[in-house]
Amino acid sequence: EDLKKQQASKPSDPFSSDPERHPVLQVNTLKPFNAEPPPEILSDSYITPSAFFFKRNHLPVPQLDQASYRLQVEGLPQGVLSLSLEDLKTKFPKHTVTVTLQCAGNRRGDMNKVKPVKGLNWGVAAIGNAKWSGARLRDVLLAAGFEPGVAQWARHVQFEGLDKDVTGTSYGASIPLNKAIGEEGDVLLAYEMNGEDIPRDHGYPVRVVVPGVVGARNVKWLGKIVVSAEESSSHWQQQDYKGFAPGTDWNQVDFESAPAIQELPVQSAITVPADGAVIHHSDETLTVAGYAWSGGGREVIRVDVSLDGGKTWQVAQLRSGDKGQAPEPSPPPGRAWAWKLWEITAPLPPEAEELEIICKAVDSSYNVQPDTVPPIWNLRGLLSNAWHRVTVRLRRD
Amino acid sequence: EDLKKQQASKPSDPFSSDPERHPVLQVNTLKPFNAEPPPEILSDSYITPSAFFFKRNHLPVPQLDQASYRLQVEGLPQGVLSLSLEDLKTKFPKHTVTVTLQCAGNRRGDMNKVKPVKGLNWGVAAIGNAKWSGARLRDVLLAAGFEPGVAQWARHVQFEGLDKDVTGTSYGASIPLNKAIGEEGDVLLAYEMNGEDIPRDHGYPVRVVVPGVVGARNVKWLGKIVVSAEESSSHWQQQDYKGFAPGTDWNQVDFESAPAIQELPVQSAITVPADGAVIHHSDETLTVAGYAWSGGGREVIRVDVSLDGGKTWQVAQLRSGDKGQAPEPSPPPGRAWAWKLWEITAPLPPEAEELEIICKAVDSSYNVQPDTVPPIWNLRGLLSNAWHRVTVRLRRD
Ligand SMILES: [Mo]
Ligand SMILES: [Mo]
Repeated sequence: EDLKKQQASKPSDPFSSDPERHPVLQVNTLKPFNAEPPPEILSDSYITPSAFFFKRNHLPVPQLDQASYRLQVEGLPQGVLSLSLEDLKTKFPKHTVTVTLQCAGNRRGDMNKVKPVKGLNWGVAAIGNAKWSGARLRDVLLAAGFEPGVAQWARHVQFEGLDKDVTGTSYGASIPLNKAIGEEGDVLLAYEMNGEDIPRDHGYPVRVVVPGVVGARNVKWLGKIVVSAEESSSHWQQQDYKGFAPGTDWNQVDFESAPAIQELPVQSAITVPADGAVIHHSDETLTVAGYAWSGGGREVIRVDVSLDGGKTWQVAQLRSGDKGQAPEPSPPPGRAWAWKLWEITAPLPPEAEELEIICKAVDSSYNVQPDTVPPIWNLRGLLSNAWHRVTVRLRRD
Repeated sequence: EDLKKQQASKPSDPFSSDPERHPVLQVNTLKPFNAEPPPEILSDSYITPSAFFFKRNHLPVPQLDQASYRLQVEGLPQGVLSLSLEDLKTKFPKHTVTVTLQCAGNRRGDMNKVKPVKGLNWGVAAIGNAKWSGARLRDVLLAAGFEPGVAQWARHVQFEGLDKDVTGTSYGASIPLNKAIGEEGDVLLAYEMNGEDIPRDHGYPVRVVVPGVVGARNVKWLGKIVVSAEESSSHWQQQDYKGFAPGTDWNQVDFESAPAIQELPVQSAITVPADGAVIHHSDETLTVAGYAWSGGGREVIRVDVSLDGGKTWQVAQLRSGDKGQAPEPSPPPGRAWAWKLWEITAPLPPEAEELEIICKAVDSSYNVQPDTVPPIWNLRGLLSNAWHRVTVRLRRD
């Protein structure tokens, strides 16, 4: 009833039926809703509660109900398979995987400071780590008739959302076929987030979770899966979410010249203390905390922290669970989908009045973050993974 | 006869039967033999001729002949399999893969300039790209009795060389089981390099070729393969070839705290012009060339070049073959094992007397090279992949 009233009262606003959100979120845009939590919330818990998990919506949140929900699987020799939510839950084994999702635009704010870019001005918190449960995409594709011969012509698996713009166009994306069908890809058609039905903002009732791959391919409100020779033709696959050189501007950019972002590069950020914080201290030590993650299942193996602007570095403590709890089991090689939280307590330089604190992570391929932002600057402000720097002032009490 | 005489005349020198080498190589150490070609040779041809391919020997080159050669495969439930070279060539399909191999110490020279490190002082040419042919390790393991149950306890595949030190210890290394057995790992037991028997310096008659993985795991003169729950116990797996933080010194270093290097990070270098070159020019343009590669099958998607010390960047032309020839076919995602050569011809800044030329590469996970050396400096001088910089002087004729 309430819903009906809302729709009736604002017939022209497609966002009027969007869900409620937690007031602590820092809102980037209201319609569509894009928001991130305060950074310090991220390092408070290894699993990010869904209320605080960044929301990145391209379109209004669709109103879907579990009884009428159907997922179409297309493009395979035996034709279209249509699955209800009940089918997904009962006909396929349920798998739970802890996966970090990161928006391609996370930390875009750092690029905007160098030279303005086009896109939401995200801080460092357009990233979160959740336990996702659902059917394996691999199992569903096999049930829909995937067999080795399909790999002769198919190269991609496309996803279409049930969210629509005013013209009726849905959000869409695709991933490489080998990621979708591989036994070690761990791609889920998830119907639970952190042990509960996926909240509406995160794709209720079903979203794709593609571990190690940019958020933009983890299509929410999933309506259709298409096995195809081609990538998704959507705007977001073809004309967006690609990286370019720092010298490329909007007059020259050729979106066909760059591959669609899939696996993300190694990333880390400081969540505590906040940039610009004034630290009143009688202690002689400072605690710095943050997160670190890498795409493609590459495990973060080390985080280095500097309190002196990069002149000297100390190695932070990493953890894969909450403090005082047993960590998650070690993942097999190449399947480290979840972030690490890190922390270091270091002596304060006795004379310093201001500290430039920096973190940088190393992943299991020994990839590292670049030192500075300008050489990775790009017109869309994507892939912003330079060293994270915060400056704090010290005030002795 | 010659060989006998040589051995007889220098009974105390285990290196006396090492093969002849091309005189153009820049020798790092003679015994064991470690040498790299002049950098400009690397960009002369997409496939590096074996004579110019960097040699990285830890021990004397063993004297092996194809008739008596045997490869032992151990650790599988059905016991030891012993294969002759003839077996390898006739009982398994022959696969050819173009694979770039890079020494973990490539570009160590750049780290030595920051602060001395322990290791051979390689320039930028401890890397090469060759066509390797042989049996798939996967096929051999399956023939030796590998079945899915083995993956319950096995985690690694160890390799032992037939090269030995004075105490009789062989060179050894291991790789993760999933890389060895995966259908997309493309690991070869190679008996040909560029269409000929593998030269003695490169592992005659059989070496492992592990695409996307550091040279040190590509064991030459392969004598034994062991499927195991453990990594190789060799010095080179356990106490070497690992990365550490810049602050870690030889007093503190704990080799157990870091994972053995497997996949390498994104890399590129300038091969032409040489550092310190004086360019006499009447032209208004300068051509810069080099190579770019990344580990783990990640394809290089872009190389940026700066002629002004990193202030502005231009995108280089990439190629996967020789000029005027058809390029190699595009690899499937995640299986880009071969480097790209790149080139750019750019206007010379009219007033400049000196140019700092820089290159940096981006791979398909959008990982990038770090800007500077000191923050990735490590006591062994490994993983030296900061932007490559050369300075040239311009002299107008
Ligand atoms: Mo995103
Ligand atoms: Mo090496």
